[in-house]
Order: sequence, then C-alpha cells, then structure tokens
Amino acid sequence: MMQQLSVASLSRDQKFEGFLLVRSAEQRTSSNGGKYLDLTLCDTTGDINCKMWDGTVQPPRQGAVIKVRGTVQEFNGRLQMRIERLRTPSAEDDVDISRLMPCAPEAPGAMLAEINRTISRMKTPELQAILRELISMCGDRLNYYPAAQRLHHAERSGLLHHTLSVLRAAEAVLPLYPFLDGDLLRAGAIAHDLSKTAEFISDESGNVSDYSAEGQLLGHLVHGVAQVKEAARRAGVTSEYVLLLCHMVISHHGQPDHGSPRPPMFAEAEMLHLLDDMDAKMNEMEGIIRRTPPGAFSEKIWSLDRRLYHPLIHTSVSSSEDDSFSAADAYSGLL
Amino acid sequence: MMQQLSVASLSRDQKFEGFLLVRSAEQRTSSNGGKYLDLTLCDTTGDINCKMWDGTVQPPRQGAVIKVRGTVQEFNGRLQMRIERLRTPSAEDDVDISRLMPCAPEAPGAMLAEINRTISRMKTPELQAILRELISMCGDRLNYYPAAQRLHHAERSGLLHHTLSVLRAAEAVLPLYPFLDGDLLRAGAIAHDLSKTAEFISDESGNVSDYSAEGQLLGHLVHGVAQVKEAARRAGVTSEYVLLLCHMVISHHGQPDHGSPRPPMFAEAEMLHLLDDMDAKMNEMEGIIRRTPPGAFSEKIWSLDRRLYHPLIHTSVSSSEDDSFSAADAYSGLL
Amino acid sequence: MMQQLSVASLSRDQKFEGFLLVRSAEQRTSSNGGKYLDLTLCDTTGDINCKMWDGTVQPPRQGAVIKVRGTVQEFNGRLQMRIERLRTPSAEDDVDISRLMPCAPEAPGAMLAEINRTISRMKTPELQAILRELISMCGDRLNYYPAAQRLHHAERSGLLHHTLSVLRAAEAVLPLYPFLDGDLLRAGAIAHDLSKTAEFISDESGNVSDYSAEGQLLGHLVHGVAQVKEAARRAGVTSEYVLLLCHMVISHHGQPDHGSPRPPMFAEAEMLHLLDDMDAKMNEMEGIIRRTPPGAFSEKIWSLDRRLYHPLIHTSVSSSEDDSFSAADAYSGLL
Amino acid sequence: MMQQLSVASLSRDQKFEGFLLVRSAEQRTSSNGGKYLDLTLCDTTGDINCKMWDGTVQPPRQGAVIKVRGTVQEFNGRLQMRIERLRTPSAEDDVDISRLMPCAPEAPGAMLAEINRTISRMKTPELQAILRELISMCGDRLNYYPAAQRLHHAERSGLLHHTLSVLRAAEAVLPLYPFLDGDLLRAGAIAHDLSKTAEFISDESGNVSDYSAEGQLLGHLVHGVAQVKEAARRAGVTSEYVLLLCHMVISHHGQPDHGSPRPPMFAEAEMLHLLDDMDAKMNEMEGIIRRTPPGAFSEKIWSLDRRLYHPLIHTSVSSSEDDSFSAADAYSGLL
Amino acid sequence: MMQQLSVASLSRDQKFEGFLLVRSAEQRTSSNGGKYLDLTLCDTTGDINCKMWDGTVQPPRQGAVIKVRGTVQEFNGRLQMRIERLRTPSAEDDVDISRLMPCAPEAPGAMLAEINRTISRMKTPELQAILRELISMCGDRLNYYPAAQRLHHAERSGLLHHTLSVLRAAEAVLPLYPFLDGDLLRAGAIAHDLSKTAEFISDESGNVSDYSAEGQLLGHLVHGVAQVKEAARRAGVTSEYVLLLCHMVISHHGQPDHGSPRPPMFAEAEMLHLLDDMDAKMNEMEGIIRRTPPGAFSEKIWSLDRRLYHPLIHTSVSSSEDDSFSAADAYSGLL
Amino acid sequence: MMQQLSVASLSRDQKFEGFLLVRSAEQRTSSNGGKYLDLTLCDTTGDINCKMWDGTVQPPRQGAVIKVRGTVQEFNGRLQMRIERLRTPSAEDDVDISRLMPCAPEAPGAMLAEINRTISRMKTPELQAILRELISMCGDRLNYYPAAQRLHHAERSGLLHHTLSVLRAAEAVLPLYPFLDGDLLRAGAIAHDLSKTAEFISDESGNVSDYSAEGQLLGHLVHGVAQVKEAARRAGVTSEYVLLLCHMVISHHGQPDHGSPRPPMFAEAEMLHLLDDMDAKMNEMEGIIRRTPPGAFSEKIWSLDRRLYHPLIHTSVSSSEDDSFSAADAYSGLL
Repeated sequence: MMQQLSVASLSRDQKFEGFLLVRSAEQRTSSNGGKYLDLTLCDTTGDINCKMWDGTVQPPRQGAVIKVRGTVQEFNGRLQMRIERLRTPSAEDDVDISRLMPCAPEAPGAMLAEINRTISRMKTPELQAILRELISMCGDRLNYYPAAQRLHHAERSGLLHHTLSVLRAAEAVLPLYPFLDGDLLRAGAIAHDLSKTAEFISDESGNVSDYSAEGQLLGHLVHGVAQVKEAARRAGVTSEYVLLLCHMVISHHGQPDHGSPRPPMFAEAEMLHLLDDMDAKMNEMEGIIRRTPPGAFSEKIWSLDRRLYHPLIHTSVSSSEDDSFSAADAYSGLL
Repeated sequence: MMQQLSVASLSRDQKFEGFLLVRSAEQRTSSNGGKYLDLTLCDTTGDINCKMWDGTVQPPRQGAVIKVRGTVQEFNGRLQMRIERLRTPSAEDDVDISRLMPCAPEAPGAMLAEINRTISRMKTPELQAILRELISMCGDRLNYYPAAQRLHHAERSGLLHHTLSVLRAAEAVLPLYPFLDGDLLRAGAIAHDLSKTAEFISDESGNVSDYSAEGQLLGHLVHGVAQVKEAARRAGVTSEYVLLLCHMVISHHGQPDHGSPRPPMFAEAEMLHLLDDMDAKMNEMEGIIRRTPPGAFSEKIWSLDRRLYHPLIHTSVSSSEDDSFSAADAYSGLL
Repeated sequence: MMQQLSVASLSRDQKFEGFLLVRSAEQRTSSNGGKYLDLTLCDTTGDINCKMWDGTVQPPRQGAVIKVRGTVQEFNGRLQMRIERLRTPSAEDDVDISRLMPCAPEAPGAMLAEINRTISRMKTPELQAILRELISMCGDRLNYYPAAQRLHHAERSGLLHHTLSVLRAAEAVLPLYPFLDGDLLRAGAIAHDLSKTAEFISDESGNVSDYSAEGQLLGHLVHGVAQVKEAARRAGVTSEYVLLLCHMVISHHGQPDHGSPRPPMFAEAEMLHLLDDMDAKMNEMEGIIRRTPPGAFSEKIWSLDRRLYHPLIHTSVSSSEDDSFSAADAYSGLL
Repeated sequence: MMQQLSVASLSRDQKFEGFLLVRSAEQRTSSNGGKYLDLTLCDTTGDINCKMWDGTVQPPRQGAVIKVRGTVQEFNGRLQMRIERLRTPSAEDDVDISRLMPCAPEAPGAMLAEINRTISRMKTPELQAILRELISMCGDRLNYYPAAQRLHHAERSGLLHHTLSVLRAAEAVLPLYPFLDGDLLRAGAIAHDLSKTAEFISDESGNVSDYSAEGQLLGHLVHGVAQVKEAARRAGVTSEYVLLLCHMVISHHGQPDHGSPRPPMFAEAEMLHLLDDMDAKMNEMEGIIRRTPPGAFSEKIWSLDRRLYHPLIHTSVSSSEDDSFSAADAYSGLL
Repeated sequence: MMQQLSVASLSRDQKFEGFLLVRSAEQRTSSNGGKYLDLTLCDTTGDINCKMWDGTVQPPRQGAVIKVRGTVQEFNGRLQMRIERLRTPSAEDDVDISRLMPCAPEAPGAMLAEINRTISRMKTPELQAILRELISMCGDRLNYYPAAQRLHHAERSGLLHHTLSVLRAAEAVLPLYPFLDGDLLRAGAIAHDLSKTAEFISDESGNVSDYSAEGQLLGHLVHGVAQVKEAARRAGVTSEYVLLLCHMVISHHGQPDHGSPRPPMFAEAEMLHLLDDMDAKMNEMEGIIRRTPPGAFSEKIWSLDRRLYHPLIHTSVSSSEDDSFSAADAYSGLL
Repeated sequence: MMQQLSVASLSRDQKFEGFLLVRSAEQRTSSNGGKYLDLTLCDTTGDINCKMWDGTVQPPRQGAVIKVRGTVQEFNGRLQMRIERLRTPSAEDDVDISRLMPCAPEAPGAMLAEINRTISRMKTPELQAILRELISMCGDRLNYYPAAQRLHHAERSGLLHHTLSVLRAAEAVLPLYPFLDGDLLRAGAIAHDLSKTAEFISDESGNVSDYSAEGQLLGHLVHGVAQVKEAARRAGVTSEYVLLLCHMVISHHGQPDHGSPRPPMFAEAEMLHLLDDMDAKMNEMEGIIRRTPPGAFSEKIWSLDRRLYHPLIHTSVSSSEDDSFSAADAYSGLL
C-alpha cells in the first residue's frame, strides 16, 4: 500500500488520494435537482463526510473499501472532502486494510487454511464430515465476521481469529491432559461459535449493525445445535458424535446465567468452555491494558465487573515489548 | 372390567383372577434346572411377587397389562402368588387400567382427538403443517408418556393430559386478551412439551425408568427447537412461524435458571409460559391438598419451596366435592 | 362530545373551544399587581400553558376537566393560550375523557357494577360482607385510581380495570380446575389490590404524583392485611375466611423479592398470584407491542428485564386487528 | 426446693419424691378394664415414662409442674416409675423450675416489671398507650412463651428475655447516638416480637409444639402490624407514631429474604433491626460456644451458615468464668 | 478564631482576612514571564480561585490551612481573590478548622488519648503490645485520615472518630453479654480499620484523592492481617491472640460479598462486625436524615439500597434538638 | 517391591509378608495386664485390624509405611492379622508406595526438581528470591501434602502435582498470549497454593485429618499473602513484585463466593485463576469419568453441581487408552 494521509491528520485545502472504508453511502438529490453521492469514509484514525457531485456514480456498499481522490474543504466549520474520482480496488492495489478498520492480526485465508489442515489431520471421519458441512454453511461470512459487536475480538475476521486461538489453545493443553479425546475437543473448538454468522449482521468490514431476529430469539448456542444437527443430516452422520458436539455447543458458556441451559457434562465440553472463556478474557484484557498507562487503573470494565491494573513493572521493558504488538501484528494483503 | 381383588387386600390361600400391570418379569432357572417365570405384578394399591412354574411361557414385557389366575401363598413370611394361567388381554376384556396405574382422567384417544380438532380449526396452514409433523414424529409414545418422572402429571398419558390442559387454558383466556394471535398461542400450547418423548424413557404404563442421554445433555427445550426445525423442513414451511414457534419452545420455562436461555420475547410466548406454569402448579397442588387433611399443613414440598395448607373451610363441603374428583375422574376403556 | 382540536395540532392565532384536563393551576399576581390564572392544560396529545387575565376566577383543581374558550398566541417562541371563558362541564356536556387522559377501556361505573354483581352471586356470606366493607372503605377513589404510577394499567380507573380483568380471568379458568374454591378465588381477585388507594396519591385524572408515607413504609400488601382485618371487624366476621383472605393479599406477589413475605400456601392463593401476574404482564406487553413496528425489537424494558419483539406475521392482519383496539376501546360518558 | 434426684440418675427400685414437668399425660384403660394414668415426666436431664394406677386421678395438663412420689421399676428393659401420689405444687413449695426446663435466667415477673417501668418513664403518651394495649393483648402467654422453637431464646420466658435484652441494648447505645428518638426506639424494642404469642403454640413450660395457622400464613411481622393498628384503635391513637411503630415491626428482620417486605427506612427502625439481630446472635452463639471445648470448632451451624470456634485463650480463665454462667444464672421462685 | 467571612458570602470588592484550606496550589508563569501563585482555597461553604502575584512565595501544600488577606475581584464573570498576604498559622492563631472542612466532632488528640487509655487499662499484655505497634505503624496519618472517601465518616479524623465510636459501643454492650472476652473485643474495635491508612491517599484535610494500588489490589482487610502479623512479630507475640485478631480483621465485613472471605467465627468477631456495621450505618443515616425535611423521603441511597424517611414527629422538637448537633459538636483547637 | 498380597484378597489362615501403611496405631493393655499393639494397616484396596502381642514394640506413627509379617485370623466374624514381625523399611527395600495410598503419578523429588529448574531459569531476581524463601518455609511438608482433603488431587504429593501441572499449563499457553509477563505468571503458578501446608493437617501418607485453626479462621489465600510478605521481608525484596504476587495469591479463586475478596485485576492474575481452575476440574473429572462406565451418567457431583457423562465413543478405544492411565502412571521409588 502506498503511503497515504490518515483521516485524523487531514486539514483544509489538502489533496488526498488513497483507500478508505465506506461507513455509509447514499445517493441524494440537491436543491437544484441534481443527484450526488453523500458518503462517510473512514480509516482507523477517524471518519470524514464526503460529497461526490457526479450524479452518475452509484453509491458503493457499506463496508467496502474504495480508492478515492479528492480535496479537503471546510463546510459549516467541519472538514468535508470533495471527491473527484472513486473506484473499487483492483488486484494490483496493495491495500493494507488493517489501517482502515480493526482487523484480526492474521489474514482470514491463512487462518481458515490452518483450521482446514487441522480437520484434515483428524482421525474421526464423522467429525470431519460434520465440520466441513458447518464451515460450508457459513459461506463467505466466515472471512469477515467479527466475534462480537463489542468486547472481545470485535474486529474484521475476529470470529476466525477467536476460533483459531481456541483451537491452538486446545492443541497446547492436550498433551497435559491425555485422557481427553483430542478430536472431540478440536471439533468443539472449531464448531462452537460458527452460528454467530447468523446471530448478528455484519458488513464486510466486520462492523456489526445489529442482532438478527434469530440471534435475539434463539441465540447462537441454540441455533448452533440446530445447525450441527442439520450438518450431520447432510453428511449422513448419526453416531453419538452428533449428540456430543451438540452438547459442546449448547454448554460452552458454562452456566444458565451466561446462556447455557446445561453445564458441560463431560471433560472435553468443560475444557472447551474454559478455553473459550480464557481466549475471550485474554483478548479483552490485552486491549484494556494497552490503553491504560503503567501504574494506573482502568475505568471499571462492566463486562468484567472490575477495574484492571497495568503493573509498573511493565514500564522498563515496554519499548521492546510494545514493538511486538503493533507493526508486527498487522498483516497486508489483497482483499 | 369384572370385579377383582386389589393387591393390597390379598391374603394367604386366596384365589385370584384379574388384570395386573407387569412391573418386572424375567425367566430364571431353578436349582433343579427347570425354567420358570419370576414376576412383580401390581395395581395402584401395591405389588406382589409371582412365580409361574411353566417353563414354556415367555416373560411379558415391562409396562404391559396381563390377565392372570393364581393362588396366594406365603414364602419366607411374605405373600407370593403362584400363577396358573397368564395371557394378554383380548379386545373383549373390559380392562379398567386406572385401577392398575396412575392414569390421566381422560382416555388418550379422546385427548389426542381434541387436539387434532383444534389443529383442524386453525386458520394458519403453516402452523397446521408443522404441528401435524411434530405429532407424527412422537409416534405411539404420545399415548402413554407421562409429563414427568415425578411432580406434576406423573401418570400414564400425563403428557397428553398436560398438553390438552394448557390448550384449554389458552382457549379460556384468549377472549380476555384479543390482541394475542390465537393460532400462534394454540400452536405453542400443543408443541411446547412434545420433545419430552425423547427426554426420558417410559414404559407403556407411564413409568419412567430414567432420562435419556439426549434428555440429559440437551433437554427437551433445546431438543424441541431442533424438532420444530426438522418438522418445518419436512413440511416445507420457511416462514417466520418457524422462528416464532422455536422461540416459544425454548423460552417456555421463563428464565435461565429454569432452563430457558431466552425469556419469552413476545406476548404469546409469555402467555404460553404462564399457562404452562399454571397448569403444572395446579396439578401438583391438587395432589398435595388431597393428601393433606383440612386444617393441616403438608410437609415442605421441595419443588415448590413451601408447605401447603388445606383450608378448614373445605371440610364442610368435602363429601360432595370429593365425589367429583374420584370415581368420576376415572375412565374405562380397552387398551 | 363535539369535535374539538387536539392540543398537538394547535397553531398561532387559532381559536379553541373544548374540554381540557387541568395538569396544574394557580392564581398569580402580575407585575402591575393584578391577579391572573396560570394553568397548564392538556389532552392525550400534549399540553399547553394558558393564562386567564380575569382575576376573579378561582383556579380549578388539578386533575379536573374544564371547558375553555380561548385564542392561541405565541410568547417567547412557545405557544400559549389566552383563555376567555372557563367553566366546569355540566351534565349536558358529552365529554369524551378518553381523549383527555389515558383511560381504562370501560367506564368505571360499569366495571364496579360487574364486580358488585359478582359479589351478589357468591354463596359465601362472610366473604360478601368483607368485600362490601372493603369496597366501601375505598370510597370515591376506586373510580379514578390507576393501578400503578407507571408500568401496567397506568390509566384513569386502571385499578378497577385490573381488578375486573383478574376477576374475569378467574371466572375463565375456574371450570378447568374445579377443585378450587370459586368464591375464595373471586374474593381474592377483588380484594388483592384495593389498598393501592392508600399506597399512592392520585388526582381524579388518574395521574399519580407520589407514594404516600403509608405506601412507602408499609406497602399495599401489608396495609391490605390490616384493611381486611378492619373490614372483617366491622362486618363481624371471625371465621377462617379472614385469615385466608389476609394470606391471599400478603402472598399475591409470589415471593419475598417481589414484596410477599409468604409464598402462596394454598391453591387459590397461588392461582390469584398467577392471574395477577398474567394480567399485569399482558397489559404492559400490549402497550409495548403497539409502540413497536412489526419486525422490530423494542428497547430493553427494565420492568420485564428484556426486549420485546413484534412479530412480522402481525403485519398482514394489522388493519382489521388494530381497529378492535383503538376506537372501540374508548368509552364515552358524563363525568 | 428440697433436694431431689435428677431423672438421668434414677435406677431400678429407687424411691423418688420431687417436682417434675409434664411432657404428656393421658388417661388410659387397661386390658382388665381399669383406668390408669400414662405420663411422660421430665426435668432438664431427661424424661421417664410413668404409670399411676389410681383411676380416679385426672391427668394434669401438658407443660404443668407436678409433685410426685413413686418407685422406679423396670419394664421391658426400660425404666418406668410407678407413681403413688401426685399433686399440684402449693404456694409453700419452693420449686426451682430451672431444673425442670430451660428457663430464662431471670424471673418473668421481674422482667415484665422492668419493661413496664421503662414504659412508665417514657415521655410520649401515644407510645405508652399503644404499648400497654399490646402487652395486655398478649395476656398470660407473655410469662412463659419462648422466643423461638429452636435457635435463640428457646427457653421458658424466652420471649420476655429477648425483649428485655433488646430494650437494655437500646438503652446502652442511645447515649452514643443522641440523634435517635429514644422513646421510639424503646417502643420498637418492646413491641417488635410480641406477636410471637400468636405465631406458635407453646405450653406453659415454653415447649413449642407447632406453628399456628396464623403464624404460617402471615408470620409475626405481618400479624404484628395488624396488632399495633388494633392496639392503636383501642387506645384511640391516630398520630404518626402508629405508622412508625408498624414500620418498625414489619422491617425489623431487615430484608425481604428474612421476612421484611420493607427495609428499615429511618434510623430508629435500623437500630432496632441491628439490636434484635445482635441479641439473637449473641444468645445463640453463647449456647454453641459453651457446648464446644476450647480449641475446637463446632459442627456447621445451619442457622448461621458457619462453624464456630471456641478460642483456646478462654481455657485459663474458664473456672471462674464458668461460674458466672451456671448457678448464678438460674433463678428460683414460686410458679 | 476571629470572625471571618464565609466563602459563600463573598462579593466583589470585599476585603477578606482569615484562614482558608488549600484545595490546590501551584506556581505558574504569566504571559509576561513573571511567576505567580494560582490557588483554590475553601471553607465548608464553598471555594474560590485566588491569585498571588508575588512570584517569590512558595505554593503551600494541598490540605494545609493558611491565613490570607486579600480582595475579592471579578474575572470573566466569576469571583476571584487577589491575595496580598499569605502565611501559615502560628500557635497563637485560634483556628476553628471545623469551619474549613468536614471534621470529626472531637479533636484527634483527645480521641487518640481515649483509645490509648483503653489500651493501658487492658489486662492482656499480648494485645496491648500488638495494638501499640499497630498504632505506631500508622504514624501521623491517624490524626487526619477519614474513614472513607464517601459514605460514612468522610471527614477529617473520621478514621479515629469511627474507631473510637466502635470502641465506645463495645464498652456499652459488654455488660449485657458478659461471656464475651472484653479485651479481645476492645482490641478488635481498635485494630479493625487501621489499615485504611494504607488503602487510600488522603491529604491532611481528610480529603481522599484516590485509592492506593495496595488498597485496590488487596484491600484494608487483607492488608490488615499482614499488618497484625508484622506488629506481632515486632512485639514478639506468638500466642493465639495473633490468630484471633487476624480473624477479627479479615471477618469484620461479615460476608464474602462485602469483602470478608471468612464470616466471624467466634462471638467477639461477630460482635465487632455488628458494631462496625451499626456505627457506619448510624453515621451515614444521621447525615441523610439531617438533609431531609421532616415528613419527606430522601432520594434513593445507593449504599443502603433504599430511601430514608424523616419522621414528622421530629418536627416539634427540632429546635432544641438541632442545637445539640451543630455548634456543640464542633471543636476548636490548634492544628 | 516384591510381590505381596493385597489386603482385599486376604483370607483366614493366610500368611502375609509385605509393606503396609499405618492408618492408626496405639499401645494398649490387655485384661491380663500385658501390653500389646493395636493397629489398623492398609493398602489402596482396603484396611485390616492387626494385633502384635509383643509389648516391647513401640507403635509406629500414623502415615508411616512399615514392613510386617503375620497370619490372618478371624475374630468375632471379622478378619484380623496377628503380627509376628514389624520393622521400618530400609533403603534396600523397593517399596511401591503407590500400592499403599493414592499417590501423585510422579515422584515428589522429580516434581520439586522441575519447579526449581523453572525458578532458576527465570530472569527476575526478585521473584526468584521470594519463591525460594516460600518453598523453604514449607519444609518437608511439600513432599507429601495433598492439594485437598477431598475433591481434586487428594493424593500423596498432590500439592506438588497440582502446582507443577498449573506451571506446565502456564508454559503451554504463554506462547499464545505473548503480552503476558512470563515470570510473573510462573511465580504465581508456583506460589498460589503453598500455604495449603498450613491450612490443613496431613500425615506423611497424604491423609488429611482436619483443617488447622489457621486454615479455618484465615484460609490459605489470606495466610498466603502474609507468607509472601514474610518471604519478601526475609529476601529483602521491596519492589512492586511483592504486591503483584500477593494479589495473585488472594485473587486466584476468582470471586468473593469462592474465597477471593478481590477478582484478578491484571491479566497474569486472571490467567493464573483460569489455569488453577482448569487443572482442578480436569483432575476431578478424570477421576469421575474413570469410575463411570461408558454410556452412563455419574451420580450428581456436588462440588461441580452436575452429573457427568462418560461418552460411549470412548468404549472402542478403551483398552489401549486405559493402559496409559494405570500402570504407566504409577512410579516406584524409595521412601
């Protein structure tokens, strides 16, 4: 991606050329009857209202990345960009989307490939067949869905990121507890949250506008059980694995108050619940600690029901440590 | 049904002829190598161990009603019946099964017919189609399943009894709240507990031996959602009614602590929850009050978390009132 | 009631003649020493500040309906009505008070008559005597008191409306549960909330300004028990019915967290609690669903601890259905 | 009281003469048609079955103290006393009832006198009038009622004991919090538990057989409010003190889960709740600690939800300290 | 203290001379390069921004009392004081600090002396030694620390005030429960909150800016146990008293939800918990009742989870009673 | 260890020679005045009462392993061993203690060595110093203490086993969450439960007789904080690490109801809590699953508040899998 100005740094009369994310876009009619585009475009540093007076251009869809060229102006005391050209990125464009929206630290394609490799290495054909159906039923949404509207993994491809992290954690602890059925735990790790693709509505940038009716009236756990049963029907699997996987999905929040009408009732289900909780908490805490100066306490975090402390001991090592979290975390790639 | 002695009234050397319920039955081998039947037979007043020394007779299955002729003997200080003849009832036998096991006060066939009439009168074809599939998926079990192992409607055909009672209560309150969608409420009343036929394992007398693995790991609410989705798939229904009915099933226990991961989120779902709760409580309380003398308190009832009081004012009117609950409640009919 | 303009539709220089509700009224002294009336008048569509410069007119009391004639003016950018004439309605005026304030859908006189007819048909003289004393102790307030400051039945005559609805629900379910003592349940339905007339302070339009000290320090359940005991003393009743009715009053909220130090301990008390809850929930939900478009979810309702969904299936039938709830619900009558 | 043998020390063929408590007594008819008395008599060390073969003697009432003379025999391997003479104690008998049943450490007459002196010294005539009515309404029961069936102050006159202890605690803390209204707190201390005389059924020895219907269906807090209102009506008091005292009664358990539908809403009500809790806990803990050896932990005490520890440091001073709790605590007096 | 104007009464062009509390103070540099002092000074009636243009004066420290002489001016529509002279109070100044900040009603020196006298009169050398170490470890902070940032005893020397009040309450109730070990209860009363001096950060005026890291990560109960152990180590005490005192500190909040991982497990620990709770509640309620007019209810108090009522009966006696709480409560003395 | 008979397999008149664990032992005096030893000896299959009539032998201490030679006899219908010779094992004896008592699957020496190696590799000298002091303060008890009286790791050396498992889990997840401070997490893993050596009283076989007074009155979390502070004092460490480690100890149970007055307030503390919970749950579940046949549910496990299911799918692979848990898990070694 070529060098481009960040939205937060723009000032009046500046020329801008680069890639931006479409937060909203619609065609309007001006008082003189002409049509124009009204857009809100953004990168991770902020957003700006834009006008394109060419009435022939169709509005890009929300969540898309576009390339624009324009000039920054001031209108009623606020900055506004007058867009001269606008196009969708081509394959040659080297867009760094992590500068446009919060993104998972790895590319969705690579993450999905790792999950598929794990499925291929399993020794339980029934589970393999069900998992492949489930992933196929998610379709394209798996690439960009976040894991939540707020809180943990609220980022483009966050659902894949969280799924893969739980899977990796499962691989890490399996050697310590060899009585666990490895393939059952792996299958639960991969399947547990896939129904989030039906629970809320996300655009391609990973921005969630709302919960779906299905998401509100059933939730991704109950819907997930129906999905596992449907996948098993399609794959022709009728063995006990269907019931076990259904139970892992419905119990992975651990207790009724958190949405699970049944607690985990075998060890692999309990381990899935623990790793899911661990990964969500670590992801959320990492974000909070980064925003809190060493030696200080955060505001009260309602989802965790506590304030967090950023230990002073992190101060001395922060320069090198911080490096490992910022630039290196990002990934570049074609959309 | 001809007059027969009650099990509790039997004494040594008495002849017995009549119908009894098979609590358990197995073929054994005596010390001299001969085969014989060892049975426990019962009616609602008690049970008795029985032997039939004819090694050629196959053991009847648990939960079945059989006709026996035999003689009461004493063995090691306890009564035992030596059975001379044993056969399954024929169509001519007029068996009053309500004397053999706790039974719903109406015949299963009549109850199912009333439910089917209600379905036929509905004006919503999608709901009719789903309900007919659901009832068909229950098969024969609907005739004899109880609604619970203990507590409310723990009786043969108790599931039908409870289902019909909730449906009747729905009809009774619908005129008071005309903003409710009548067919949606009726459909919820009929469908809400049907998955109990997969939750536990009952013999034909309505005696529950245990919960099924599916019942323990998922429960009848979660399983019920999958059943509604499967029924809708078979019936080719894809409209919003599928989601609404699924929500009514998953939310009908009202709150997470009682097994519903979602509270009722529209008025028909709330009304279903209230009527389900009302019918279960009334059925349970009626049984407790009957066992408690007027002016006295029951033991603490754990499921209700309280003791119950039988008001003294019931005393004066008990003679006529009691009549309306005993003989008249029973029904006679062929099995 | 003659046609009159709604407050929300008023504009400058318009003439107005019609009936309005007094939200507040006081006599003031202008800077030149003259006395005038400052009033806030309203109908269900909004309110408007009014001045009447005739210093001899006494301010009407809050909650009253008055007939006014005046002219709409603008003062400091807001509309204001200059009132030329003002009088209390006469018997000939055909005031539709349901346009002036939220009202129960039936007239208070008719509702009270239905309750009294039910009492007359009872076969238990002790309960009849107590109920008549209780109703008499409420006096005039029973006509206009709402059932709550907010939430369910927060409308003029809402207390009568809720009382009658619970009574009707009791009549509807009694045939289904014949072991219940009908008169005891009817008496509980009538008596359970009557002490709300002492719990808060309402003007004649059903507008609650605050809770009373008695309401805050004891609540209508505890106060209700004392009222039942006082009514029984006056009526000379000493039988068990007094204790049973006291228990139904104190237990009708069902559990300690909801204000009942005792749970319902006999079946009629439990049924009263269930029907009271049902009627309150249905009334509240009906209002919320009406304010929510089909296919949408409401905001989170704190009293219910959930969001509500207005099913899409209601859309197609809404035209005819809505009719049955609006105009037909209102009643007209002399004050 | 003359020296008499303790029941636990009796052995076969011993003569016994002394006072015993009647646990139960009834006239029976022997197989030869003669009438005799069958009694269970006890002191604090145990009980013994007794027979009096004189058919003309009427059975004494349960809870009474009687003087008996008899001989200990053995029947079917258990001790039994054959009673030769039996009479009610006369005024000359110096009965130490604290050897016959658990008793409050002070005489009921003295305790009541102290309470009445406190009432006389109050400066609030309304409160004085209400309190005198309330005490009068308790009648004779105040002399012997315990404060509970089990737990704290389960002893003859325990209700007076607890009432007086709370009153003394109120006097002790009033100088520390001078903003409190002393008479209001004193009145609450005296009135708060008086309705326990209607909550359960105690014989004259302070032995509680059961809760009353009123006690179960309303409880002493709700009933207490009605009693205060009735007392105020009789005394002709209508001032705010009636409401305040009612609130102190209904709120003195502090929170809904403990039976108070309202929390204490002014400082005197809160202080009453705290002192009531303090006195109950101290009385219960004192009993538990005495039964637990120094250095040991008690069993788990369910009412306190914990085990208690008897500190070792008490060991060294136990000899003198124990004195202050045993003999000196007892009181002697005529019944 | 000489008469001085209250901050709330100041008006433009007025001269002021008197003592004020330093809320904040810093040396700044004006646009012309000169140095000046910018201060916020206050008394209990309000605060005022002040400037002292003499660049040579060092800023006083936050929480200190200073004597100032200046003139009130207006700047940008707000009052501001131009300070001509500023000095720290001398021993001759008779400063009434209770007019400058919320103060405990007794002087810290007198309160500490009373606590030390109680320690001296104890008969348990081990407890005396531990308590003297603990008080010594608090150092100077004991003089001015409040007991809390908000809620009860949020006043200069509030920690000493609360400690002494609990100790006095212990002395008041000890005669009523003679089985309690008096010295152990006294020791607990003195020690229970001393670690609050490490829990938050207070300036000398008793104003708390924040919790310390130790206060947030451990809390004063856990930290208090470590302090008691350290004090015992320094004092060379190893007997059971160390463990008992540690338990009293860790259990004095009564239950896990309030910060005590153990409930009080012997009677002295329970009594400490009850008296601590009583004193905190009475102090908080006294403040709320004073701010609420007789006959009115307060807003909902979140820490108490209820509204409070100021009884009307207090009205008639308020004139004399109020006196006893205001002027007489204050104390005068040198800092 | 030579072949020896298991206690459960013993029968009358059998000779026995082998090693057994002393459950209890005392010297008694027989009716003829002679002294003898009365012992209860056991292995993991059961226990047996033993007599040794040689009055000169001193009773071995409870929890010790001894070598005995004797003859099995029958006395009053129960087996009893008459012991002829008894000695403590020598270094040459190859005792397999895992046959005598439940033991951790690895030798304590090896486990402690692995923990010490981890400490040595840390890069934080303050943490190393504190950890070494803490381990040294545990002394010999670390070798044999279990992690609990019941539930998880209730086995000889179970405390070391649990500590090491949590440490290994920490190493396993650290690469997945690189923002965590590795040494801080390792230190928490090692230190979090060490105060269990003071919480209960275990003999050398890992059998817990009771909780200590310190364990009951403070608990291992609160005591652990004091131990960390004492260790830091001895090691001369005063940096923030002391506070952080104290917080990890006090918060590692996660919430107040589980004994932690503070929740984990930085990410390393949260991770420690999660891993501690994971290891305890996995250890407990592994034991339960092993005792439950495939396809069956366990009884309700109170500590987990649920029943557990042993999936049928484990059946087919059980033969090889079971091997990996039984013999291979045991370790042999000299005591």
